[in-house]
Amino acid sequence: MRFEEKLKRYADLAVRAGCNLQKGQDLYLTAPICAAEFARMTVKSAYEAGARQVIVQWTDEAVTRMGYEYSPLEVYEQYPEWMAKLRNGAAEQGAAMLFIDASNPGAMAGIDPRKPAASSRASNAACKPYRDAVNQGKVAWCIIAAAAPDWAAKVFPELPADAALEQLWDCIFQAVRVDQADPNEAWETHRHNFDARRALLNKYQFTSLHYKNAHGTDITIGLPKNHNWAGGGAELADGRCFFPNMPTEEIFCSPHRDRAEGTVHSALPLNYHGNLIDDFSLTFHEGKVTDFSAAKGYDMLKELVGTDENACRLGEAALIPACSPIAQMGVLFYNTLYDENASCHFALGRGFSECVQGGASMSEEELVKAGVNASAAHVDFMLGTADLSITGITADGREIPVFVDGGWASEFQE
Amino acid sequence: MRFEEKLKRYADLAVRAGCNLQKGQDLYLTAPICAAEFARMTVKSAYEAGARQVIVQWTDEAVTRMGYEYSPLEVYEQYPEWMAKLRNGAAEQGAAMLFIDASNPGAMAGIDPRKPAASSRASNAACKPYRDAVNQGKVAWCIIAAAAPDWAAKVFPELPADAALEQLWDCIFQAVRVDQADPNEAWETHRHNFDARRALLNKYQFTSLHYKNAHGTDITIGLPKNHNWAGGGAELADGRCFFPNMPTEEIFCSPHRDRAEGTVHSALPLNYHGNLIDDFSLTFHEGKVTDFSAAKGYDMLKELVGTDENACRLGEAALIPACSPIAQMGVLFYNTLYDENASCHFALGRGFSECVQGGASMSEEELVKAGVNASAAHVDFMLGTADLSITGITADGREIPVFVDGGWASEFQE
Repeated sequence: MRFEEKLKRYADLAVRAGCNLQKGQDLYLTAPICAAEFARMTVKSAYEAGARQVIVQWTDEAVTRMGYEYSPLEVYEQYPEWMAKLRNGAAEQGAAMLFIDASNPGAMAGIDPRKPAASSRASNAACKPYRDAVNQGKVAWCIIAAAAPDWAAKVFPELPADAALEQLWDCIFQAVRVDQADPNEAWETHRHNFDARRALLNKYQFTSLHYKNAHGTDITIGLPKNHNWAGGGAELADGRCFFPNMPTEEIFCSPHRDRAEGTVHSALPLNYHGNLIDDFSLTFHEGKVTDFSAAKGYDMLKELVGTDENACRLGEAALIPACSPIAQMGVLFYNTLYDENASCHFALGRGFSECVQGGASMSEEELVKAGVNASAAHVDFMLGTADLSITGITADGREIPVFVDGGWASEFQE
Repeated sequence: MRFEEKLKRYADLAVRAGCNLQKGQDLYLTAPICAAEFARMTVKSAYEAGARQVIVQWTDEAVTRMGYEYSPLEVYEQYPEWMAKLRNGAAEQGAAMLFIDASNPGAMAGIDPRKPAASSRASNAACKPYRDAVNQGKVAWCIIAAAAPDWAAKVFPELPADAALEQLWDCIFQAVRVDQADPNEAWETHRHNFDARRALLNKYQFTSLHYKNAHGTDITIGLPKNHNWAGGGAELADGRCFFPNMPTEEIFCSPHRDRAEGTVHSALPLNYHGNLIDDFSLTFHEGKVTDFSAAKGYDMLKELVGTDENACRLGEAALIPACSPIAQMGVLFYNTLYDENASCHFALGRGFSECVQGGASMSEEELVKAGVNASAAHVDFMLGTADLSITGITADGREIPVFVDGGWASEFQE
């Protein structure tokens, strides 16, 4: 298959399986200018799928970085009204959302972390209608990645520029299954596998999970009552399916915000706003980070944990076996969308309304009461190692192996 | 001088002489992604000049074109609220505005002209606060061009891609004087030359101008009472200077909307929304187009004249000698910013408030009463030929030569 053909299949897949774009619907697309060729293809795919209009917001990290370097902090404390109008308006009109990521992992190295953090907070406050539409299953959204020269150079520093770019595209094509005979069918099968595993986890309704490995992780996280494991495909309130992430290999839940006890140690570096935080530990008591350390990027970690008062609590626990297709590539992508699908992870910050039953129609206050964390932050970090064990504890005190030696315990295998 | 150095001087010039950007001021920048490198330089120049923040709206003709191809007309009849918020908000905050143009002249060939026309109308209606700020001298703005591969290929079809791009940049650098020892000083001198010539024209207060050549032009246009010739630098209400166009070689006025009699024949093709209209004539009676013809692009011309009820009236008459620096390059740029500075021209549509005394503080109704046209359209077309004569008629009936054989009559020469 020619490269352009794969690119086109990928664009079609993102618009159709990813966003489940309907005839006459609008598409809101964010795309970095360094991936313009592919972005244009997704625009074309969207129109071919019947989009009424495609609203493209181009982004450029070089410009963003200059802003962080020169603009004062107060600029980031106020979210631009027009941007809120754009995002909230698109959500209120029921537009599908496609986000193309081609970030250069080092793009924001050295910038003052208070600026992106302030920007996250401001965006969170200004775009509530947008977030509500997402949380209430009114809007289908999909994050995908596109290869770009700077990112490729970071992932494959030993290759010449062209070869690195090609290699990164190959990884992407493989991860999103566009190299398979029928990508849409491959994603349907993927969805069904997820469904079966999620159903089993949801049936158990573990009260907590105990994580342990030889790298410093020994932590028990509580799970909310009537919690719901999600992952793979997502469903809109009207029953239509979409894939919020492509690729996706994770099954995830929101831990109870008040019930984490113990220490978790990172398994991979965390790329936070373009800055690496590496070899770090977080210790929790009653759900809150009470202590933390980092061999690299301590200040960034401090900023992250302090984004707001609840960024120090967990919002997500995701299960991915160490033998997942992306893990098997053995590549460190410096990109959450990829690296999070290679390793079990937690997220600090916001939890997901879909992770408790009836959560979609709950207010933020009700969600917090149910144990789902609220925060402007949501940042994944990897903890999965080849020796990780995860044990589920049931309401009646039974201990059920969920992960053994970094992968699914036998009962959970396909 | 190295290419990058010229590019950087150009970026600095646009931000400083062009926009007269002040410390602490915001800059609103629109830039095509095909000119990303230069656009980033202008962002950098703006921050170096003290910009508080630079708001970049990237554009892409390929995406715009797909929209025109696939989206229904009704999409263009409504201006996006967020876009109005963005433009009006920037104007209300007193941001400077920099618009980078690198249009491919053929980009919109064959699209339904009703869509861009509807879009112009909708934008005009939705962005009144923005237009008011511009008309009332509250906002400094500057349009500049950047070379890009598709545009360069059209201008220099005989050259290989790289050479064409380089050649187009060279023309731009020459036209905007960045190849001179001190570009800012060169623009100051330019401004003073304009001032002297404008002062003389304004002193005469011609009641009308009679245009005549052997190519079918024989037309008399009235000038409003207390009219004001503008051009070169412009002035904000607070006295600060800026250059709305770089390059600029024209001195212009708004003809009286009700007083054009006769026929004008085009001297150059008109690139209207990416479609060429060529070898065309417009006949006026009492200020309105009563007949028109075109060897090429008749339907486009019809759409243009009919954009709204006053697009059939004149909004601008500009004087440029046939020996102007850009005319002397002998290049057809297929770009109004350049071609309009190579030839005397008229514009159909909207006139300029600055072209009558006190116009900045007049309402649209008052301007119309004073003779300045109001319309959503403003489209320049070239009429200057090497044999063009223009005669000014004074209130007491004297006939004063203004242009002879395509250039300034002796009284108006430097």
